[in-house]
Amino acid sequence: MSEEKKKVTRRAFLVESSAIVGATAITGGAAADQASQPARATPPRFTSPSGSVIPFGERELMATGTVRSFTGAQLGEIAFPLGGIGTGTVSLGGRGDFRDWEIFNRPNKGKALPFTFVALWARHAGSNETPTVKVVEAPLQPPFRGGDGVPRNRAQGLPRLRGAKFTGAYPFATIDFEDDSLPVTVSLEAFNPFVPLAADDSSLPVAIFRYRLTNRTQAPVEAALAFSILNAVGYDGRTMLDENVFEGFGRNLTRLRREGPAAGLDLTSDKYEADSVRAGSMALVTTHPDISARTAWEGGQWWDSFQKWFDEYAATGTLHDSHAPEPTPDGTSNYATLAPRVTLAPGESRDIRFVLAWYFPLRENYWNKEPEVKGWKLRNDYGNRFKSAWEVAAHTVSQLDRLERDTRAFHESLMASTLPSAALDAVSSQMSIIRTNTCLLLEGRQFFAFEGNNDDSGCCPMNCTHVWNYEQALAHLFPDLERSMRMTDFTVNLLDDGAMAFRTLVPVGRATWKFKPAADGQMGCILKLYREWQLSGDEAFLRQLWPQAKRALEYAWHHWDADRDGVMEGEQHNTYDIEFYGPNTMMGTLYLGALLAGERMARAMGDTAAADSYRQVFESGRVKLDQQLWGKGFYVQHVPDPKTIKVDEVEHRETWYASAVTAAGIKYQYGEGCLSDQLLGQWFAEVVGLGHLLPADHVHETLKSIYTYNFKHDFFDHPNTQRIYALNDEKGLLLCSWPNGNRPALPFVYSDEVWTGIEYQVAAHLIYEGMVAEGLAVTKAVRDRYDGQRRNPWNEVECGNHYARALSSWSLLTALSGYHYSAPLGRLAFAPRLNASDFRCFFTTGSGWGTYRQAIGRPEATASVELTRGTLTLKELGVEGFGGSVSTATVNGRPVTARSQSAGAIQFDPPVALNAGDTLNVRLRRA
Amino acid sequence: MSEEKKKVTRRAFLVESSAIVGATAITGGAAADQASQPARATPPRFTSPSGSVIPFGERELMATGTVRSFTGAQLGEIAFPLGGIGTGTVSLGGRGDFRDWEIFNRPNKGKALPFTFVALWARHAGSNETPTVKVVEAPLQPPFRGGDGVPRNRAQGLPRLRGAKFTGAYPFATIDFEDDSLPVTVSLEAFNPFVPLAADDSSLPVAIFRYRLTNRTQAPVEAALAFSILNAVGYDGRTMLDENVFEGFGRNLTRLRREGPAAGLDLTSDKYEADSVRAGSMALVTTHPDISARTAWEGGQWWDSFQKWFDEYAATGTLHDSHAPEPTPDGTSNYATLAPRVTLAPGESRDIRFVLAWYFPLRENYWNKEPEVKGWKLRNDYGNRFKSAWEVAAHTVSQLDRLERDTRAFHESLMASTLPSAALDAVSSQMSIIRTNTCLLLEGRQFFAFEGNNDDSGCCPMNCTHVWNYEQALAHLFPDLERSMRMTDFTVNLLDDGAMAFRTLVPVGRATWKFKPAADGQMGCILKLYREWQLSGDEAFLRQLWPQAKRALEYAWHHWDADRDGVMEGEQHNTYDIEFYGPNTMMGTLYLGALLAGERMARAMGDTAAADSYRQVFESGRVKLDQQLWGKGFYVQHVPDPKTIKVDEVEHRETWYASAVTAAGIKYQYGEGCLSDQLLGQWFAEVVGLGHLLPADHVHETLKSIYTYNFKHDFFDHPNTQRIYALNDEKGLLLCSWPNGNRPALPFVYSDEVWTGIEYQVAAHLIYEGMVAEGLAVTKAVRDRYDGQRRNPWNEVECGNHYARALSSWSLLTALSGYHYSAPLGRLAFAPRLNASDFRCFFTTGSGWGTYRQAIGRPEATASVELTRGTLTLKELGVEGFGGSVSTATVNGRPVTARSQSAGAIQFDPPVALNAGDTLNVRLRRA
Repeated sequence: MSEEKKKVTRRAFLVESSAIVGATAITGGAAADQASQPARATPPRFTSPSGSVIPFGERELMATGTVRSFTGAQLGEIAFPLGGIGTGTVSLGGRGDFRDWEIFNRPNKGKALPFTFVALWARHAGSNETPTVKVVEAPLQPPFRGGDGVPRNRAQGLPRLRGAKFTGAYPFATIDFEDDSLPVTVSLEAFNPFVPLAADDSSLPVAIFRYRLTNRTQAPVEAALAFSILNAVGYDGRTMLDENVFEGFGRNLTRLRREGPAAGLDLTSDKYEADSVRAGSMALVTTHPDISARTAWEGGQWWDSFQKWFDEYAATGTLHDSHAPEPTPDGTSNYATLAPRVTLAPGESRDIRFVLAWYFPLRENYWNKEPEVKGWKLRNDYGNRFKSAWEVAAHTVSQLDRLERDTRAFHESLMASTLPSAALDAVSSQMSIIRTNTCLLLEGRQFFAFEGNNDDSGCCPMNCTHVWNYEQALAHLFPDLERSMRMTDFTVNLLDDGAMAFRTLVPVGRATWKFKPAADGQMGCILKLYREWQLSGDEAFLRQLWPQAKRALEYAWHHWDADRDGVMEGEQHNTYDIEFYGPNTMMGTLYLGALLAGERMARAMGDTAAADSYRQVFESGRVKLDQQLWGKGFYVQHVPDPKTIKVDEVEHRETWYASAVTAAGIKYQYGEGCLSDQLLGQWFAEVVGLGHLLPADHVHETLKSIYTYNFKHDFFDHPNTQRIYALNDEKGLLLCSWPNGNRPALPFVYSDEVWTGIEYQVAAHLIYEGMVAEGLAVTKAVRDRYDGQRRNPWNEVECGNHYARALSSWSLLTALSGYHYSAPLGRLAFAPRLNASDFRCFFTTGSGWGTYRQAIGRPEATASVELTRGTLTLKELGVEGFGGSVSTATVNGRPVTARSQSAGAIQFDPPVALNAGDTLNVRLRRA
Repeated sequence: MSEEKKKVTRRAFLVESSAIVGATAITGGAAADQASQPARATPPRFTSPSGSVIPFGERELMATGTVRSFTGAQLGEIAFPLGGIGTGTVSLGGRGDFRDWEIFNRPNKGKALPFTFVALWARHAGSNETPTVKVVEAPLQPPFRGGDGVPRNRAQGLPRLRGAKFTGAYPFATIDFEDDSLPVTVSLEAFNPFVPLAADDSSLPVAIFRYRLTNRTQAPVEAALAFSILNAVGYDGRTMLDENVFEGFGRNLTRLRREGPAAGLDLTSDKYEADSVRAGSMALVTTHPDISARTAWEGGQWWDSFQKWFDEYAATGTLHDSHAPEPTPDGTSNYATLAPRVTLAPGESRDIRFVLAWYFPLRENYWNKEPEVKGWKLRNDYGNRFKSAWEVAAHTVSQLDRLERDTRAFHESLMASTLPSAALDAVSSQMSIIRTNTCLLLEGRQFFAFEGNNDDSGCCPMNCTHVWNYEQALAHLFPDLERSMRMTDFTVNLLDDGAMAFRTLVPVGRATWKFKPAADGQMGCILKLYREWQLSGDEAFLRQLWPQAKRALEYAWHHWDADRDGVMEGEQHNTYDIEFYGPNTMMGTLYLGALLAGERMARAMGDTAAADSYRQVFESGRVKLDQQLWGKGFYVQHVPDPKTIKVDEVEHRETWYASAVTAAGIKYQYGEGCLSDQLLGQWFAEVVGLGHLLPADHVHETLKSIYTYNFKHDFFDHPNTQRIYALNDEKGLLLCSWPNGNRPALPFVYSDEVWTGIEYQVAAHLIYEGMVAEGLAVTKAVRDRYDGQRRNPWNEVECGNHYARALSSWSLLTALSGYHYSAPLGRLAFAPRLNASDFRCFFTTGSGWGTYRQAIGRPEATASVELTRGTLTLKELGVEGFGGSVSTATVNGRPVTARSQSAGAIQFDPPVALNAGDTLNVRLRRA
């Protein structure tokens, strides 16, 4: 959240009729009664090896391999985003509906394109039976709101299929529809290409739908799927559209086109010049050969238009234009329908694929008020790669098999990991953030990001250093995009004095954002730079940024750690949008981590003097921080007497007292509280392989305390005047608690809240510290809150939707697998925390990705690295817990030289160079 | 719906966080799973005596005496309106929350006053235990929407009671809260005074809350109830308020006052002059002696204000101002809290009563665009009776016992009726429409009404003759207000040529609404005038309006029935917002009813010539209509060939063809369809005692056909391109069906819809025709759709919320009891259709109301009339099915003269004059 807004902007309106996103399959009084009398059975629980109470069944918590499915009421909140990086998305609703049309360069929660839906037509071939027409969605669910009845502009009045089971494993969503009354069964798989390291393939403005129709009868069946869509060119991306009337519409023209294997609708308008943000196009194509289409629905009064559409389709299963397409009058658009048709032999299945593409290449900076950037038009990266939505669609169709194969390879590698289901779900689902409107990909592959999304605007622009501190997914999946953020941090936002603007004004280079720097964000950027170097091995990149990184790190000595003792005492603005005063381990560990990373980078750069001084300050700080702040099982904050705060240490000294100080002391501190983020820098250090910054036993005990004190098993009796992310019977991790009392009258402003990004951070850290059950419990608590009925599993919220902090969930993968990678060292290592004897996981490096497997038996253990894409040069494979000597080492069956000098490490000399498709296999004889 | 808008305005936004109005008690995955696997048990059904399939269990359908309660998910949509006639309302939500603040002279669906809630504080007296603070509401329910988390401005972050059971029998709502963890149990009863015939007592701008606290422990308990409220003076009544910031606020000042037994908060602002529609005040008082209060919450940054409030209240159970109240700065207001406090002995119960009053005396005509009335300020009737909300509150407190006693007497008489529960529920719940923003009561007791409410504006102004055709409740409960509508119909809206403007421009007298007259509405007004005369016996009233009524009736001969044969053939604009052409029984029966009522009124006025001519046309029409239109079990419409339509018979002949005619003929007709409204006039004739207008056997068969063909047992396979009021597994009565085929390509525009007002009309008519099970099935279908989870039981929608047509439900009471009353004849009659041997029901007349009872045994039968309020002079008591001679007749035990000349009628000569409290009792020896 931005500190500019000291009052939280509340989402005033919910923008989706609940009638559409309602609850269960057919619920009525019976279901309601069930719900009103919750079973009061004793909830499952067990005690972890560390002695913690875990409020889940152990088997359930540790189970691997299951992917969540959703039915009934759980379908209500599901909105599975389909789109590429920086392209925006349209979401597939749990019922099969299309919702949240966010393809127009801004968020658009709860708003749908009118009369954009898919309707099945079916009857037995050659029969006289009345054809069935049903919208390919599960039924609407209560509540059925609306002063004029349930809204009708998504064809809500037409029959629907009787039920659906939604299974989502990002980037694939699958819906198995149920309807016994039809001669065909229907299923749907939807996705957008997502291939790690392949940003181009992963940033296509398309949504791909594959409907599968299966004849369940003994006789041939004729069937059709009519995909209707509003030609929405000219839409502003945020107004609630009732029908096809909107000021931005006009001269909308839809044509039927064929090009190679693609046939379908080219939806255009020539109302706008190319330099308008409204200019663009849409396309809906199918690879199916037998189609009919209507490029414009007929007009009429009242509901004539829809009725005539229905009558034509219902009668024949086909649609045809009554006259040649014409541009629409100003202020209106029209609907079009593409209707592939099949005849299915008894038992036959056929797939009908649709590619929905969009092309809105320009966006406007609506989010900044700074005159240097306000209103500037920004070009999406895809806008330089393509010229129209039709071109995007044709490209996608031409590459579809490859794109799907690569995406599926990644998906299968990830989802086949032997990680517990909740963790895998957290990793997988939250990757989607990268592809929502939280993130931008501008021309030249410049990656920018908000913190999250309000319902129709980005929230808290841009590249916020402290929120993006928690993110680990982009860094590992698309490290080149992540590096573009570092370029921005260090070449755009670093001021002469070494302070880093912690937000970015886009387009860059025109102005710098004006505010005090964030202590956590700035130190985090040093750690991130270290990570990017380790992942990429790109020494030139490091060399380019090193001088700035040095200034950024040393800025601490002019401000936060003026006495250069390795402990920050000054005014530390941070991710809670307030300032901490005095020593605390949240900023303290980030600072120690930055010093240590700084030392390593300095040495690599040959800057020994800097390296030595960082080491010296680090050594001082690690001791002092522990000595000063270690309390009763965790670290506390030393809040200074406000009178001791020096004038030059705070902004606006003259007004500071009035706003920041009460009789009880400085407001918005945590003091003796147990802060969930208190070892944030330590967590980052684990992720990037820097090891313990503070005494190991204290780190371990602190994590256990955080779990014990901050992880609530329910929220029934939790009074919270702040924002609300968990309630009732939900479980969640508080940002802070005061188990030893002395809660400040007005503690820091988010202290009583629950943030998923911090929960994943702590969960991963618990796992790094061996408290796997605790970490998984925290993880499962989050995912249970996002259960489809309560909240959308693909949209974790904090200050906005698709909030970037949740990208910390990637660290669950690194923690559970014990993954570390250093390109400079040519070292890839794993240390599974669970299922180590028969383990499998997905991994990435800066140059390639694939699957790691290990099996530990007697007398032999094996480890294999299967590289699916890219290249990978290994000098060492770290395998924790493996004793023994190498018996064989092969790549694709051909021997390579390997030895095991010490337990847990296999060296390759010469290095092994793997290419896509190669598998490195090592067998060890165990001692 | 207004015919001005040929496109339906869609409610774009839902204006309430679903997090607040969500679903069940504590549901989670388990409940969701239940819901997703609906039981596929065979649904109950039975065959009626008439041979119809009834899709309910017979016992369930016929059961009397049960009042619906709601728990869990069913609480979600409940909003029980609290307010007087023409005062607006605030609604009590199913969870105990206050929602839909519609006290500012307009609808305001989904919007609540921030931080306006009641919080319980409790602990054992003198103990050191930490006091409990819980908001007196059931928990919030999923979905938990909001990009910033669940909204917090209704104290959603504070603990709540663990469950609630809501029981509503208008005008009383009761909530029994559940929470085992508290030392007290809590219940709430809320109401607004509602006394038939007493418009003043029934139009107070107040909501009355009685919280009952019971000590469930063995030790004394200290408890408090803090009622917090925003000083909302200056609010526009429609903007979503996040907090206390709004342009209209400023100079808001809340004072603590005591006056007699009332103590509480006087919420004012002197920002506005008295002639501003924003001017007004609010008051919150209690009759409880021991109170503390805070007239202004403390300020601060972030959430300081609420946190400080909570900390003070949690610590002590009391609240105190930190300094003297001051007017707020412009653009802001503040919250105040009134906190009564009690000490409860073990087992003791105490009631704490709050009266919330409001005073916003002026409203603006925002709904018309006609310059003669647009923007005019209108004074509410209550604005002339009081000077401030404080005065309203003080008045209410001073009269509270009487108001509650009278209201309860009505409530108990109605609810103790031996009518089946669904019917009683339909009658009771829909009375609430009279007191919503659908209806206005302006100075001088002028009653006006919209058709319904959009979310923040009235829909389809004003006094629409055709929609208010269906209404019977106001006419019987507040006949003086109903008569004010007739005055408007006949003295304001009747044009020189006899056409009646079917909408009213308010203030009246400035202009007449311009549009063609409505054939159904205009004929209905004749029937209504007859009804008002029969109920009131007010001959002067009839004499005043008779000349106009005559013109209105005879207008038919110039236009709709030009050949004066008793059958309308001309262009008949009607309640479907289109025109019917050619003969049809919907208009036809209204016309026949109007002719018959006209004849009777003419004779009473001594206008024999008119009476004779009406009779002549009636006799012609009743035969011709039946001959022309009787089809295969029901009546059809004869749609003319468009070429035969004469130029002067349609408006805009030059454009008529283009818009109204297709190759298939005139659009928007029903032709051979089975129209649910086809005997609308016959239904009205039954209600007012005019008997059969068409052959009895055809009427009976038609009603049975309507049930058979139009009552759907589910909507799974019903394709509907129109508006949607029933779906999925719901049951409901279609406006039309085509059981014999020949559905027009574009039938009339609402034909595939389901309207509760028509359902009740048909249900009552089925009951009049002796098909009680069929009528109850249709009734129960409606109420099952409004089950608290799907929709709000106290808000039936059509074109808008609280839609007036549903006031037809009153005819279920008249049909089931066989009630008829004629003041001119001094005759009150009953003919129970169910439970006749031991029957009890509520009744009204124009002068008094009470309870009718009958018991039929051998050898004796008794009938009694207990008059609760007003006076009643009876010459005859009609008792259908009673043979026998009078054995005794008494009033309050004192004999009166009575005889039973014919079966089914007891005559009193001299007439019996009953006063409030009197009971007339007649015993009959049965032959």
